[in-house]
Amino acid sequence: MADSSGDGAPANGVTRIAVAGASGYAGGEVLRLLLAHPRYRDGRLEIGALTAGSNAGTTLGAHQPHLLPLADRVLGPTTVKELAGHDVVFLGLPHGQSAVIAEALPESTVIIDCGADFRLRDAAAWEKHYGSAHAGAWPYGLPELPGGRAALRGANRIAVPGCYPTVSSVALAPAVAAGIIEPAVHVVAVSGASGAGRKLDVALLGSEVMGSARAYSIAGAHRHTPEIAQNLKAAGGQDVTVSFTPVLAPMPRGILATCTARTTVDAAAARAVYEKAYAEEPFVHLLPEGVLPQTGSVLGSNAITLQVAVDDDAGLLVVIGAIDNLTKGTAGAAVQSMNLALGFEETEGLSTVGVAP
Amino acid sequence: MADSSGDGAPANGVTRIAVAGASGYAGGEVLRLLLAHPRYRDGRLEIGALTAGSNAGTTLGAHQPHLLPLADRVLGPTTVKELAGHDVVFLGLPHGQSAVIAEALPESTVIIDCGADFRLRDAAAWEKHYGSAHAGAWPYGLPELPGGRAALRGANRIAVPGCYPTVSSVALAPAVAAGIIEPAVHVVAVSGASGAGRKLDVALLGSEVMGSARAYSIAGAHRHTPEIAQNLKAAGGQDVTVSFTPVLAPMPRGILATCTARTTVDAAAARAVYEKAYAEEPFVHLLPEGVLPQTGSVLGSNAITLQVAVDDDAGLLVVIGAIDNLTKGTAGAAVQSMNLALGFEETEGLSTVGVAP
Amino acid sequence: MADSSGDGAPANGVTRIAVAGASGYAGGEVLRLLLAHPRYRDGRLEIGALTAGSNAGTTLGAHQPHLLPLADRVLGPTTVKELAGHDVVFLGLPHGQSAVIAEALPESTVIIDCGADFRLRDAAAWEKHYGSAHAGAWPYGLPELPGGRAALRGANRIAVPGCYPTVSSVALAPAVAAGIIEPAVHVVAVSGASGAGRKLDVALLGSEVMGSARAYSIAGAHRHTPEIAQNLKAAGGQDVTVSFTPVLAPMPRGILATCTARTTVDAAAARAVYEKAYAEEPFVHLLPEGVLPQTGSVLGSNAITLQVAVDDDAGLLVVIGAIDNLTKGTAGAAVQSMNLALGFEETEGLSTVGVAP
Amino acid sequence: MADSSGDGAPANGVTRIAVAGASGYAGGEVLRLLLAHPRYRDGRLEIGALTAGSNAGTTLGAHQPHLLPLADRVLGPTTVKELAGHDVVFLGLPHGQSAVIAEALPESTVIIDCGADFRLRDAAAWEKHYGSAHAGAWPYGLPELPGGRAALRGANRIAVPGCYPTVSSVALAPAVAAGIIEPAVHVVAVSGASGAGRKLDVALLGSEVMGSARAYSIAGAHRHTPEIAQNLKAAGGQDVTVSFTPVLAPMPRGILATCTARTTVDAAAARAVYEKAYAEEPFVHLLPEGVLPQTGSVLGSNAITLQVAVDDDAGLLVVIGAIDNLTKGTAGAAVQSMNLALGFEETEGLSTVGVAP
Repeated sequence: MADSSGDGAPANGVTRIAVAGASGYAGGEVLRLLLAHPRYRDGRLEIGALTAGSNAGTTLGAHQPHLLPLADRVLGPTTVKELAGHDVVFLGLPHGQSAVIAEALPESTVIIDCGADFRLRDAAAWEKHYGSAHAGAWPYGLPELPGGRAALRGANRIAVPGCYPTVSSVALAPAVAAGIIEPAVHVVAVSGASGAGRKLDVALLGSEVMGSARAYSIAGAHRHTPEIAQNLKAAGGQDVTVSFTPVLAPMPRGILATCTARTTVDAAAARAVYEKAYAEEPFVHLLPEGVLPQTGSVLGSNAITLQVAVDDDAGLLVVIGAIDNLTKGTAGAAVQSMNLALGFEETEGLSTVGVAP
Repeated sequence: MADSSGDGAPANGVTRIAVAGASGYAGGEVLRLLLAHPRYRDGRLEIGALTAGSNAGTTLGAHQPHLLPLADRVLGPTTVKELAGHDVVFLGLPHGQSAVIAEALPESTVIIDCGADFRLRDAAAWEKHYGSAHAGAWPYGLPELPGGRAALRGANRIAVPGCYPTVSSVALAPAVAAGIIEPAVHVVAVSGASGAGRKLDVALLGSEVMGSARAYSIAGAHRHTPEIAQNLKAAGGQDVTVSFTPVLAPMPRGILATCTARTTVDAAAARAVYEKAYAEEPFVHLLPEGVLPQTGSVLGSNAITLQVAVDDDAGLLVVIGAIDNLTKGTAGAAVQSMNLALGFEETEGLSTVGVAP
Repeated sequence: MADSSGDGAPANGVTRIAVAGASGYAGGEVLRLLLAHPRYRDGRLEIGALTAGSNAGTTLGAHQPHLLPLADRVLGPTTVKELAGHDVVFLGLPHGQSAVIAEALPESTVIIDCGADFRLRDAAAWEKHYGSAHAGAWPYGLPELPGGRAALRGANRIAVPGCYPTVSSVALAPAVAAGIIEPAVHVVAVSGASGAGRKLDVALLGSEVMGSARAYSIAGAHRHTPEIAQNLKAAGGQDVTVSFTPVLAPMPRGILATCTARTTVDAAAARAVYEKAYAEEPFVHLLPEGVLPQTGSVLGSNAITLQVAVDDDAGLLVVIGAIDNLTKGTAGAAVQSMNLALGFEETEGLSTVGVAP
Repeated sequence: MADSSGDGAPANGVTRIAVAGASGYAGGEVLRLLLAHPRYRDGRLEIGALTAGSNAGTTLGAHQPHLLPLADRVLGPTTVKELAGHDVVFLGLPHGQSAVIAEALPESTVIIDCGADFRLRDAAAWEKHYGSAHAGAWPYGLPELPGGRAALRGANRIAVPGCYPTVSSVALAPAVAAGIIEPAVHVVAVSGASGAGRKLDVALLGSEVMGSARAYSIAGAHRHTPEIAQNLKAAGGQDVTVSFTPVLAPMPRGILATCTARTTVDAAAARAVYEKAYAEEPFVHLLPEGVLPQTGSVLGSNAITLQVAVDDDAGLLVVIGAIDNLTKGTAGAAVQSMNLALGFEETEGLSTVGVAP
């Protein structure tokens, strides 16, 4: 990790950043946010190597035409050699490719992995869901969880949370921590198509996606299920059973999570728990009573919007949360984690203002 | 009216149909289906009066430009006088307007109400959710429920189910009836925008809807909640607690419902229950194992596609169901009910083939 | 083969049909229409072999989940052997694969090619745009063009028009034929994503397509340009210069074409030309004055809706046309052509009613 | 106008801004950009009065839930009194309401009108298209036009261009100015739904817009037609005939314009003209040869992306341009104009980075 100056930036005051997987959605969003970072604008951040797998040798503009200022940059191969010599390396790689790169880079390099490899602490859970050997666990880039922020300050290895776990965990952790729900939660989360990455799959073609909604990886099959469970266990100190159903909706971005669990408290008590939990969080917004989150309002922003209600007839707490899966759900969390790791202001370069309509 | 010839059609063999609310989405979909009905094509069905509220006096084409064969028809006012003299009257009216018309038309007229007025049998539930006096309950147009078909044969007053209750009830009734789940169900259902009707509401503008998902009427506030509960109680003989969350997604049509409840049976047993329940149903399709419903596949069709799974870790039955909210969720059920009421073949004019992609 | 019984159907009264490329969009739409064809419903049409390329061996349901009645059918390989023994063979194949199959099948087989191989009569134009040897030209499946219908009656080889040429030619042919425009036309046509076929291409992913419009193959590069020119030359007897720009819009289906050309006639005279040209056409609808076509109104229908206006200030005829690219633009024209070839009623199994909203 | 300090900001260094029409799309986008403006972040810009018409008295958050930092601000009425006392007033009002406010505010106030009232210099053209008395013409907020920038420096009344004229004029002005095209241009422009504003209109409902494309205001009827003509005449010094067709596509934002005109130059010559014209423009990007603009790439950005080609067969110049109608097409131009008027850096607070996918 950058180790020298007052705020954690390197000695010369310029933090040099590489992005591996720059032609993918996660890498592109990291770059979008870096281009808007105040430290990039005034020269204290530099965007160094941009690398890719099969797209190496082409320009960034061929894949990310929205990043006009970097359009002419040629993508290098994703190798240790290319990524060496940077203070921060963001990884947006397919599962299983991060460990070998992380091991070869100096320990002082801040590595921020947008992939799943280092998210789960439980090796058995990893192996069950990912079918490969467990690489280990890194500090988890969700500062809004209890104790989450402290683990990130000065960290030099960070696992960015999955998009579904981000919104689900933030939506449920206060209730779990306060003990106001039974430890069995239901999450049904509607996601835009970019959550699947820039993957050549017939089921992700525009013609298939537009005008249609579909569930996938139901009944506990989705890999984010154990990650949500891990976060909620950490929040409450006991095992939490998680029922998770992801639903693909015809939109490019956004996750809208509906979270329910049995409760005995009333709406006012539930709201009080959330008000207290997030009063100081810059990116978590408990909306005014009766106002419901919508993904369109957080497009491109790092905000998480929440609403809390109690269904008295059913005896359930209902929490609705919205995020942009690519921003707060991936790259925003990555930049927020970088800010914490390097001692920058946590909110630098991140906005709570969405692009709407 | 279903009193004379062998198949329930009137004596002269021609069934004359009126549609009230012809400029709305429900009315338009009824007309779309009638135009494709074999009896319309060969002259045994006639489309008589088409009426509207504030749109009376304009042509149907101004509101339903997709119904080219009827484009020049002028809409009359929605009055008893206009609707009199038909064998079947479909009502696609705002809540609260059906009773007065129904009372003034002859008992022999088959009235099929696409609105909510006569769906709920429990007056208290009606008053709680609709805030007006209970008008009563009519035979319920969901033949796929246990006993549902018999109640519709020869009926002359039919309440078409709500779109969410249709898919939710068909998705859960077999499990409730078989006693394989606890009587507390969670339903999160993603719907296209047409479910809200052709209503001037800023929140329904294209700019607001596209690119965004949002929940609404959460925590039991949606009026379809007691209707689902009524259906499940009928299926299982005991009260069922229903947690229902509707989510608006950026698509014109379709509902994708995720339904969960605690179970102790395994996946094979659960599947067997559904296979048995729907083996003979022409419009309910339990998809092959592992294949998940999608709304795009049932666009414009009267099919309900289902998948059943068990989440062993969470101890839950998970049922996913998809319908087109305007077809099986409204107008398809209305035509299916008409077919039953008049003694026609139940599936006439209704397809299980969707328009995709 | 169109040789035996009164209406051109085979001697035993059952027409047996094969579809090659059944897992693609064109093939799927042909099947959707066949399933709704009255002759299929009453047993006079049979759906025989369904074949595919790399998808051979899988079920149709895996690719066309909307075609529930055929979901269990297993796809055979696209070989002459599989396709032999049918009265009608629809081809939905990549460019360049039709000729070899057509040559190997009996001349009596009615082959209807949804691909481009036999559309262009000018070998030089073919070679310029497709870069391969010209296979020849077949009767062209656009009965609405002058002389178009006669060429299809009894034909046993039919080239289905391209989607853009269909709407553009129908929109402009009357003006060309009547000599009311200069022989230089501008066409800008907005298309849904299914026009590109079920092709694995990053640019066609839902995340890329939704929320974005883009032109492609501009400045005469699109292969449909010479096809439009061919049709207009046939209509007017002289060369017509065609400027054609296709634009991809975020919708699954539909083409909205804006066609302009210099004129000296006024709006009334222009309208009269179109009224006369299409008075008897069952699928071409000149909308009432001032009403503009929209693709949503012809979704799934075989209709072409048109509006004609004159821009007095610019001295231009403006014709707007809308079709469903997969129906009238591909599979609907194919079925319409089959009907003509076999002596069936031309409109059988085809509707002018769209699925909306 | 702010008249004092070095950079045109008021004496105390703080520029105070009001936004009238803050609950509409234009007003919301102005606020989104102001919140990201470096001078807002460091306190040199203040957001003062936010006003509305019928929405006065409600919170901004009720209408613009994406503007979280201002969600609690209560909207005042759009009156001179509310708007007085600010250095800059942005107007996002219905046509015809700007003049009375502008007259009542001090001449020194910088008024930037996002509406149409002061765009046209030709009173006859105004009256023909808007049907009301001509209010006059203000400096026109399109610095990229020849001479455009100079007119805005220090201006205290600015008319923000229409969205279609922005992209059309930038796409065609260099060719007109260089005399490489005949003075008769065709523009077909595909727009997202927000271009129509936040207007309660059945035709703008999500159910109507999604899945459909439609032209509107064809044959010269659109009010932006004379504005394009005015700009091109200014660029070239002679009258230019403009054929303009707007097409509504199912997306919230973005305009993709296809512009054609007869030319005799070749592609290289045409490209050279555009390279020269826009070499120094910070927001106009001529894409690499063969790369085509797409609206998704400029979402939320102030960039205009262009591509230029020549259709040799048709003898036409083809220029494709993409903008975000709410950013560069409205609010971005407004902020850019403010920057120029006040002597700020022109690009402050404006990005060429879009939000994609």
